[in-house]
Amino acid sequence: MSDFSPTVLQAKFERLRSNKLFELVVVSIILLSALLIGAKTYPLPELASQAIVVLDWAITLFFLVELTVRYIGEPEKKRFFRSGWNVFDTLIVVVSLIPIDNSDLALIGRLVRIFRVLRMVSIIPELRTLLNSLLAALPQLGYVMLMMFIIFYIYAAIGSTFFATINPELWGDITISMLTLFRVMTFEDWTDVMYETMTQYPLSWTYFLSFIFLSAFAFLNMIIGIVVNVLEDEHKRQAKADAKAAGEPSLSDLQAEIRALHALVEGKAKEA
Amino acid sequence: MSDFSPTVLQAKFERLRSNKLFELVVVSIILLSALLIGAKTYPLPELASQAIVVLDWAITLFFLVELTVRYIGEPEKKRFFRSGWNVFDTLIVVVSLIPIDNSDLALIGRLVRIFRVLRMVSIIPELRTLLNSLLAALPQLGYVMLMMFIIFYIYAAIGSTFFATINPELWGDITISMLTLFRVMTFEDWTDVMYETMTQYPLSWTYFLSFIFLSAFAFLNMIIGIVVNVLEDEHKRQAKADAKAAGEPSLSDLQAEIRALHALVEGKAKEA
Amino acid sequence: MSDFSPTVLQAKFERLRSNKLFELVVVSIILLSALLIGAKTYPLPELASQAIVVLDWAITLFFLVELTVRYIGEPEKKRFFRSGWNVFDTLIVVVSLIPIDNSDLALIGRLVRIFRVLRMVSIIPELRTLLNSLLAALPQLGYVMLMMFIIFYIYAAIGSTFFATINPELWGDITISMLTLFRVMTFEDWTDVMYETMTQYPLSWTYFLSFIFLSAFAFLNMIIGIVVNVLEDEHKRQAKADAKAAGEPSLSDLQAEIRALHALVEGKAKEA
Amino acid sequence: MSDFSPTVLQAKFERLRSNKLFELVVVSIILLSALLIGAKTYPLPELASQAIVVLDWAITLFFLVELTVRYIGEPEKKRFFRSGWNVFDTLIVVVSLIPIDNSDLALIGRLVRIFRVLRMVSIIPELRTLLNSLLAALPQLGYVMLMMFIIFYIYAAIGSTFFATINPELWGDITISMLTLFRVMTFEDWTDVMYETMTQYPLSWTYFLSFIFLSAFAFLNMIIGIVVNVLEDEHKRQAKADAKAAGEPSLSDLQAEIRALHALVEGKAKEA
Repeated sequence: MSDFSPTVLQAKFERLRSNKLFELVVVSIILLSALLIGAKTYPLPELASQAIVVLDWAITLFFLVELTVRYIGEPEKKRFFRSGWNVFDTLIVVVSLIPIDNSDLALIGRLVRIFRVLRMVSIIPELRTLLNSLLAALPQLGYVMLMMFIIFYIYAAIGSTFFATINPELWGDITISMLTLFRVMTFEDWTDVMYETMTQYPLSWTYFLSFIFLSAFAFLNMIIGIVVNVLEDEHKRQAKADAKAAGEPSLSDLQAEIRALHALVEGKAKEA
Repeated sequence: MSDFSPTVLQAKFERLRSNKLFELVVVSIILLSALLIGAKTYPLPELASQAIVVLDWAITLFFLVELTVRYIGEPEKKRFFRSGWNVFDTLIVVVSLIPIDNSDLALIGRLVRIFRVLRMVSIIPELRTLLNSLLAALPQLGYVMLMMFIIFYIYAAIGSTFFATINPELWGDITISMLTLFRVMTFEDWTDVMYETMTQYPLSWTYFLSFIFLSAFAFLNMIIGIVVNVLEDEHKRQAKADAKAAGEPSLSDLQAEIRALHALVEGKAKEA
Repeated sequence: MSDFSPTVLQAKFERLRSNKLFELVVVSIILLSALLIGAKTYPLPELASQAIVVLDWAITLFFLVELTVRYIGEPEKKRFFRSGWNVFDTLIVVVSLIPIDNSDLALIGRLVRIFRVLRMVSIIPELRTLLNSLLAALPQLGYVMLMMFIIFYIYAAIGSTFFATINPELWGDITISMLTLFRVMTFEDWTDVMYETMTQYPLSWTYFLSFIFLSAFAFLNMIIGIVVNVLEDEHKRQAKADAKAAGEPSLSDLQAEIRALHALVEGKAKEA
Repeated sequence: MSDFSPTVLQAKFERLRSNKLFELVVVSIILLSALLIGAKTYPLPELASQAIVVLDWAITLFFLVELTVRYIGEPEKKRFFRSGWNVFDTLIVVVSLIPIDNSDLALIGRLVRIFRVLRMVSIIPELRTLLNSLLAALPQLGYVMLMMFIIFYIYAAIGSTFFATINPELWGDITISMLTLFRVMTFEDWTDVMYETMTQYPLSWTYFLSFIFLSAFAFLNMIIGIVVNVLEDEHKRQAKADAKAAGEPSLSDLQAEIRALHALVEGKAKEA
């Protein structure tokens, strides 16, 4: 069998892919790429700028090679693009390879280079797990978030109905009003917003206070929801771990043993 | 029996009422109504404004029909208005139907149309449950809230006694003082309020710091109260679920079995 | 025995003291007293002001009578002043009775009238329990608060060493610096404070960021400390309640029964 | 054996070191040193300033003596400098002893005197435990903090790419942008920052809102992580304590006893 037959190559690249040193090199290159992105925001001498352009291309090439290695190293090619992270990595590499002339595209090119830092998440398993567990918690909060949106929507509609003439920059339409309400929710100069409306509607403080209480209450509920979820999962995980680790019998096990003993005594009683 | 006899109609409408498609249509109409409310806050061409007025009436009519269906579909008519949500829905529909000339009433008409969005909560059972559980938690916090009100009242009385002459807009009377203290509690430009009073009473920082500590402490207590309540309920619910699901015997069950065995052995002993 | 002998009076007043109606009257008078305090902060016509002065004296008299009833109703006179709340009530009444001429004393008189609202806490048992449980939690947090004070003290000393010449109003001496740091901790215009110092020491942001992280960390620790305390107490209370309520046997009980059975079987074996 | 032989001295000093009175004196001297640091930030008459300089040297000398006592009192000299706190104390004393001429060094001298207050932590065991438990919790949060840094880095890179020309003081380079984002995270005048960028990019509010949500979410996750850790530790500690204190048998113990009984009954059956 030739050294370059597809199967041999695949096996070789699969070993390479899970090699600790290879992983370390990839992480280092991503770090270098992040540093370059940071460096570009400082005013630099001409020479350094040119060096950065060259390094940028070298990094793009390295990412292309690394992706190829990972693709060839994958035993089942079809499964490769089922992973969202692989699709993300491929997109980042492909867009980086497009030669840029137009200034609008140049902006996209710069953004793509910034998003390369996210490859850190795709390459470090612990960060990937963390992100997945965060995303997994979101849907359970769906109804609380819908409730919060309804609160915002109603208050924004009321706000732009009454206050639009007072200050159109804050209450002009429902989108701007929702942004203003978010600002009120973060307590950022919310009294300035309130005092302005109170010049015309002296009772408008009820609007703001009720909004703050309602949104704080809904927000609190959201946090409690997350905490309860987390603690429950933790509790279950631990209960299982405890039971398995200690080899502790369950109450059912004890019941079974008592019943066996009962049967034994009863059997003897009949014999006698 | 005629197809239009009351009983047949009631049974038909009851089926319709719990039809998934019918529910979806109602939710869609509420969503449309919410979008119209949002759209009205933007400057619109004449044609669009007229279209909105027509749509508005169409929605009101639809809500009237839907309410009638739900009312006729109710087997026990008396129970219908015992549900707060049904009363709320009826009010919204009735007030929407009143023709409006006077400008003051027009405002109420607009507000009622905004509150239609709340019908989302009345129609989606999960949101209704969420709101009910929130409201159920409130009375248990009654005493903590009373304590907080006492703290606010005493500090507001002290504040307007001492600082009213310094800045009547912030400390003029006890209501304004309580609003100012709420502002201090949200940390919104609270140092400006404090520095102003320190020009006349250099030690007034003790007033503000003690208030912040006390209110933060009471607030913290309120949150802990909610969390403990939630966790306890969760704990009980889970303990029950665990016990039922696994068919796990209780310690009392085991005790009963041991005693039965004891009786058996003792019985044999007497026989022998 | 005469109707006015001390023992008969004591027994009568003890019954009166724990009479539900009497309690309700006292709470109403305290509420009235609180309303008067609030009313006095508004501009009032001459007549109303005079009415308030009269009502004020009536309330003072009522409080004097109520205190006397409670004192005479106490079976053991010595124990009466051991309760902090009784001492507080007596002080409030005694100071209210002092006739006031001097304006400085007038201020104290007004303050004492405000603190009468606190009698609400002394009269409602639930509020008293709440306050006691809050106070009971404080000493356990002693070391975390000491740690926080040390952090504040060190940063304030550094702050007034370096920044006193930049803005003496914020960093003049160690007391003012601690107040400024408390302001930074509440995030109130903290960037204004920081940017000012960065004009002279460009790296001073490290001072502010490290302070924010440290104090937030210590604060978080304090909150967690409280929460853990509360949950532990809750846990213990519940565990006890569960065990007692259900009459559930403990594992030790089961062990004892199994051993009794063992002894029985063994006894029979020896007999045979 | 002479009274001044090293072993006798070591034993004497070891006793002295753990003497309650000696500890109290050390704590008092540290408190005095803290008070002096505070006093120096106030304008003082010449005499007081001179007294402070003398006291300062006295304190330095006392610390030198105390350190020597603790060093000689240590049975194993090598272990002395393995403790971070001993190294810290030694550094503080040594740097305080350096005579200062140059003004730059004078500043370091003043800082070292301020850090003496930290000796409070090194001398009170409860504070030392508290700090250690805080530091022990940090590494477990490593990945969440890394995730947070990645979020900050990416947003700062985007921010300085787009907004650097709008306001270089806030978005000039990636370091300044990260500081600005920290400010946005603390909600300090964040709307001013946002409105400024919205003049050029009307959609830039998506940048700020998504950042606030992401960072709040990551922050929340960090807090939950800490709380879960703390509660788990608490839970384990308590479970152990409960089991040991009550002498409660485990389920395994009961199982063993039931099996012994089973064997006994079975043995009898065979005999018979």
